[in-house]
Amino acid sequence: MLILHGSIVSTCTQRVTLSLLQIGLVLDKDFKINTINLPDTKTPEWLDIHPFGVMPYLEDTENGQKFIESRSIAKYVALKYKSPLVPSPTDPVTFAKFDAACSIEQANFDPFVLSIFMEGWAKPMRSIPNDEKVLETQKAELHKKLEGYNLLLGKSRYVAGDQLTLADLYHIPYGIYMVEINGAPGLTDGTFPHVKRWWDEISALESWKTVKKMKDEAWAQLMAAQAK
Amino acid sequence: MLILHGSIVSTCTQRVTLSLLQIGLVLDKDFKINTINLPDTKTPEWLDIHPFGVMPYLEDTENGQKFIESRSIAKYVALKYKSPLVPSPTDPVTFAKFDAACSIEQANFDPFVLSIFMEGWAKPMRSIPNDEKVLETQKAELHKKLEGYNLLLGKSRYVAGDQLTLADLYHIPYGIYMVEINGAPGLTDGTFPHVKRWWDEISALESWKTVKKMKDEAWAQLMAAQAK
Repeated sequence: MLILHGSIVSTCTQRVTLSLLQIGLVLDKDFKINTINLPDTKTPEWLDIHPFGVMPYLEDTENGQKFIESRSIAKYVALKYKSPLVPSPTDPVTFAKFDAACSIEQANFDPFVLSIFMEGWAKPMRSIPNDEKVLETQKAELHKKLEGYNLLLGKSRYVAGDQLTLADLYHIPYGIYMVEINGAPGLTDGTFPHVKRWWDEISALESWKTVKKMKDEAWAQLMAAQAK
Repeated sequence: MLILHGSIVSTCTQRVTLSLLQIGLVLDKDFKINTINLPDTKTPEWLDIHPFGVMPYLEDTENGQKFIESRSIAKYVALKYKSPLVPSPTDPVTFAKFDAACSIEQANFDPFVLSIFMEGWAKPMRSIPNDEKVLETQKAELHKKLEGYNLLLGKSRYVAGDQLTLADLYHIPYGIYMVEINGAPGLTDGTFPHVKRWWDEISALESWKTVKKMKDEAWAQLMAAQAK
């Protein structure tokens, strides 16, 4: 059994859950989620497993191992189950193309969506004053990066080639927030037609619909609890 | 033959060169560097290979393939030559630990050293006014991350376990700039003893000394050309 210690309201936990579902694993049969709260990630016990004090981590009860970093957790499970969402690493050429796509997401997408999410969603959500200048600068930077994505996606259906891989899925949890707060108009407005075609397809995956439902329900519960 | 299209004054080209040397490849025998200039990375020909318009890329004349993203290029070569700097991906557990360490570098080190490098080195170098507030904020964020590194490195000699891997090498090119401009005092001042032990060891690698000599000479030539 795989146990994912995290919370479905966390984007990194969503990234792993989405990947596990897309691999074909079934929630509460092949893996379960052990819901934890933010303060749990700062305890000495947690830091002993994840030195950076963030969620989630994955426990594989078959071998007693624990894994950190959402993207790596997803890759571990895909390699374990020989899912085509990760090309076989015994073929260095194909694996390198996949690995480059993962690196592109982490270098050209993640840092910008993180800042935009903080300034455009998380701070306003908590009534903390945000920095509009940072928000606009980061949106402009991300827009330039989407131009690169458009070139990339003009040559292949997905970011690592013509097969869907984890590298595509990695974009979804923060990409969804970008659409909600208009943080990355280029994902959907047609300025970058190849990006729009790709985004429309991956954000409509059944696996994501399942995760979105779980996350929306969890947020509704959190909000209801806070309103009491 | 492997041809690295880039410039040794670029940190990403340094990262690949360092990795290739540490794998055991010999410059001008097993691989060569085709030196290119920054404007070359914005041409349609370059963008056709690297849609984000950055250097370097690697050409493998044995199979005619081209590879982008410095970390992925290094992994490709290590897998091709079966170097122990990348654990065998046929063992998902060990590979996942390595992959998590790579992800930690890209999420918890790279974004901060990039900002600190821009504000504390690149802008002053070009006499562009920098943002001291951003510089100080990013230094403080990186300092917090080094606390996580210290926990990690208190449990293993290197970031992915007790063997040196590419994940360690990835930190060196920007880490060196941090030492030069005091951007990350925690690397060397002993606040984080495990970090200092690790940094002292990896920054003293012979492969890095070779790259540093190349980069220092290239900078000296650039400066001399500009002074004319």
